[in-house]
Amino acid sequence: MSTALLTDHYELTMLRAALRSGAADRRVVFEVFTRSLPPGRRFGVFAGTGRLLDALADFRFGPPELAALRAADVIDEATAQWLADYHFGGDIHGFAEGEPFFAETPVLAVEGTFAETVLLETLVLAILNHDSAIAAAGARMVGAAGDRPCLEMGSRRTHEAAAVAAARAAYLVGFAATSNLEAARTYEVPSVGTSAHAFTLVHPSEAEAFAAQVAALGVGTTLLVDTYDVPAGVAAAVATAGTELGAVRIDSGDLGRVAGAVRAQLDGLGATRTRIIATGDLDEHAIARLGDAPVDGYGVGTSLVTGAGAPTAGFVYKLVEVDGEPVAKRSVGKSTRGGRKRVVRRHDLNGRAVADVIFPSPPGSPSAPDRLSGPSGPGVDPAGSGDALPASPRPPDPARDRDLLRPLVKAGEPVGGLTGPAGTRRAREHHRLALAALPPTAREVGYGPPCLPVVHAEGRP
Amino acid sequence: MSTALLTDHYELTMLRAALRSGAADRRVVFEVFTRSLPPGRRFGVFAGTGRLLDALADFRFGPPELAALRAADVIDEATAQWLADYHFGGDIHGFAEGEPFFAETPVLAVEGTFAETVLLETLVLAILNHDSAIAAAGARMVGAAGDRPCLEMGSRRTHEAAAVAAARAAYLVGFAATSNLEAARTYEVPSVGTSAHAFTLVHPSEAEAFAAQVAALGVGTTLLVDTYDVPAGVAAAVATAGTELGAVRIDSGDLGRVAGAVRAQLDGLGATRTRIIATGDLDEHAIARLGDAPVDGYGVGTSLVTGAGAPTAGFVYKLVEVDGEPVAKRSVGKSTRGGRKRVVRRHDLNGRAVADVIFPSPPGSPSAPDRLSGPSGPGVDPAGSGDALPASPRPPDPARDRDLLRPLVKAGEPVGGLTGPAGTRRAREHHRLALAALPPTAREVGYGPPCLPVVHAEGRP
Repeated sequence: MSTALLTDHYELTMLRAALRSGAADRRVVFEVFTRSLPPGRRFGVFAGTGRLLDALADFRFGPPELAALRAADVIDEATAQWLADYHFGGDIHGFAEGEPFFAETPVLAVEGTFAETVLLETLVLAILNHDSAIAAAGARMVGAAGDRPCLEMGSRRTHEAAAVAAARAAYLVGFAATSNLEAARTYEVPSVGTSAHAFTLVHPSEAEAFAAQVAALGVGTTLLVDTYDVPAGVAAAVATAGTELGAVRIDSGDLGRVAGAVRAQLDGLGATRTRIIATGDLDEHAIARLGDAPVDGYGVGTSLVTGAGAPTAGFVYKLVEVDGEPVAKRSVGKSTRGGRKRVVRRHDLNGRAVADVIFPSPPGSPSAPDRLSGPSGPGVDPAGSGDALPASPRPPDPARDRDLLRPLVKAGEPVGGLTGPAGTRRAREHHRLALAALPPTAREVGYGPPCLPVVHAEGRP
Repeated sequence: MSTALLTDHYELTMLRAALRSGAADRRVVFEVFTRSLPPGRRFGVFAGTGRLLDALADFRFGPPELAALRAADVIDEATAQWLADYHFGGDIHGFAEGEPFFAETPVLAVEGTFAETVLLETLVLAILNHDSAIAAAGARMVGAAGDRPCLEMGSRRTHEAAAVAAARAAYLVGFAATSNLEAARTYEVPSVGTSAHAFTLVHPSEAEAFAAQVAALGVGTTLLVDTYDVPAGVAAAVATAGTELGAVRIDSGDLGRVAGAVRAQLDGLGATRTRIIATGDLDEHAIARLGDAPVDGYGVGTSLVTGAGAPTAGFVYKLVEVDGEPVAKRSVGKSTRGGRKRVVRRHDLNGRAVADVIFPSPPGSPSAPDRLSGPSGPGVDPAGSGDALPASPRPPDPARDRDLLRPLVKAGEPVGGLTGPAGTRRAREHHRLALAALPPTAREVGYGPPCLPVVHAEGRP
């Protein structure tokens, strides 16, 4: 299935006009960035790369797409001929998927002719804006949950295809599993699920429902105990499954209070290893409040897939360079900074990130590491080479700094290993390591300023 | 492409257990409703039916889906065999697409065996929750815009497939057009678009960019005049295209003030028929504030596709009947009302809706009209048969009341005319007529109580 029409009409009319004017062949750079993080957020999470590279491979204009565009007079015949041969042949640099990011920092740079790059705006932004919004929200929930697992259960609260991407984004930032079966198939995200209230209601009694579930799924299953009366449900659950029952789920009421009572009841019945899963309108704040309750896992739905109040990441796709010269618009309140940029995350001698530094120069040197290599980040530098001042003019030190814009596509060919299940796992690991290197405020659920400064440096690093 | 895995793991495990217990074959009814509208909203808009019927037709478990589910031990062999033959063979009643709705009212009823109906929960909810959230937000914007057109431009701010559905939902509630080319192809939503700031920046001068655009798209095009300096941009636009220039677009600054200045400048240049299109972070409140400004159309993006603060409609899918008997869970704060229901919208003698009345009985009589027939709604009843009391026990009057739950699927066969471009146009027309029959508060942009009461009646109508 072609992704070519998942775009805006004006990109095709711009192409049509640019082919006539000659601007189509100019060499340009578009950068993707956000003007601000959602209020109070400590960091953003860059996500969507794996999906973007897949969508880019399918961004071709076949006869059905060209016929539709011609019929509506979106394009003329010359444009149709140009599009028939289209495939993106330029370069893309981007943050690693899972990378924390901050406002004003370019997270993606697309380089090529104006014609081939302008067409990608909507697809690039749609994927990155959605996936990054979910990832950023999910990271806050994972942070609030500490070492208790978060389970993604939001498929029913968002578009059916967005649900698959949301499950992937949640896994990327540390969710343990999803309810979404297509995400399990496509990205190998572990999937979980047992039963809903309807399953209890369709049986003559709760005990019969529990017996049916245990017969089919084993005593390690999770029984939903709040259809009628929680203490009676817990009693029936243990009577049915025995003290080796895997877990009970509670989905309503004052979850902290109910969890405490259920824990005491389970322990009293000898089901000391039976876990308690809490679900029901949880967000990062509710998860944090349950920190002292005997809850063993959180199911999160609506709040995750709607971005915890920020359902889109705010990325824009702006032209910053034409034929090697910086360009920028000057609209009131929406001005942009011309010229392509290089972004370096600086770390102190302990491997702790201290600043993102933006240099007015092309993306980084090939010698800088493109993957984090250990739990303390890349910055462990026993030799100790010096300063930790964010805006210091010292050049990036490959031993403890990282160039954040890394090659994703070279002359139209995607770098390997970034898509599918492997790319998802790689992004999850990158996120874990990169987050661990951020200042401690990154892990605070309370709202506050971004956890890392962004500094604009002058000149080349 | 099968939609069967766009669902939650637990639906398959419930099926697996129900096939063993015998509950799979029980005749059941699930109803879809929301517990509340988003705060301050006057009405919801039911949307997604056309997409749901398409997705339902593709909800089949082929060898790839079954292999994935077996490999992950989501299902056993007996369940796989049952699923291989699956297609939904039950009945679905639902509100007309585009119908305004209120809290607690069932908007969809799915009837069949437990096995065949429980599987649809996630797909049904995902589609309806997304599309209805966008439609409800869009309806507020259309209301705020009055007789000025709203243009949907939010594709870049949401998941790339959700963008297509959002464009469709916006059209359904009265948006004039979309920027999304796939929505134009799939649903025949009119698409529009001309150029972005990048097009101006890639040319040596604004005047050259305008000349290129006019050469390709004609003088009826829309020129974006705020890349550098608005007065200079307007002057260049008219100098290039002449006084027959179709429109100018402004995307930044104080839009009301800028629009006033631009209008004066255009008029002074003789371009009195050149329209002004305003874009840039508009929502229904911003649109309302621009009511006195000389703006001729609104481009709306982020706010629309994120549901104007309510990105999901809050629908749930609850079991209400098993083998003809009402069932309901009694969870604290999340109890449900058992038994299947009939919903009638009552109108006064002037065709004005006065209440939605919920009866504890199956969906309505075949004699009641299922489509609105005129601009004043179905209630024009010159003979005048009497009362307008919302909770009156009088039976529904086919001449001026409407049964809202209408057949959508009968024994697995969808009713015709509800999908694709024709279904979309039909929903748009239904919405227009049904909205016109609501009380005037429906059209207020300010927040307030729902514009229509929902009444639970006792007994059969």
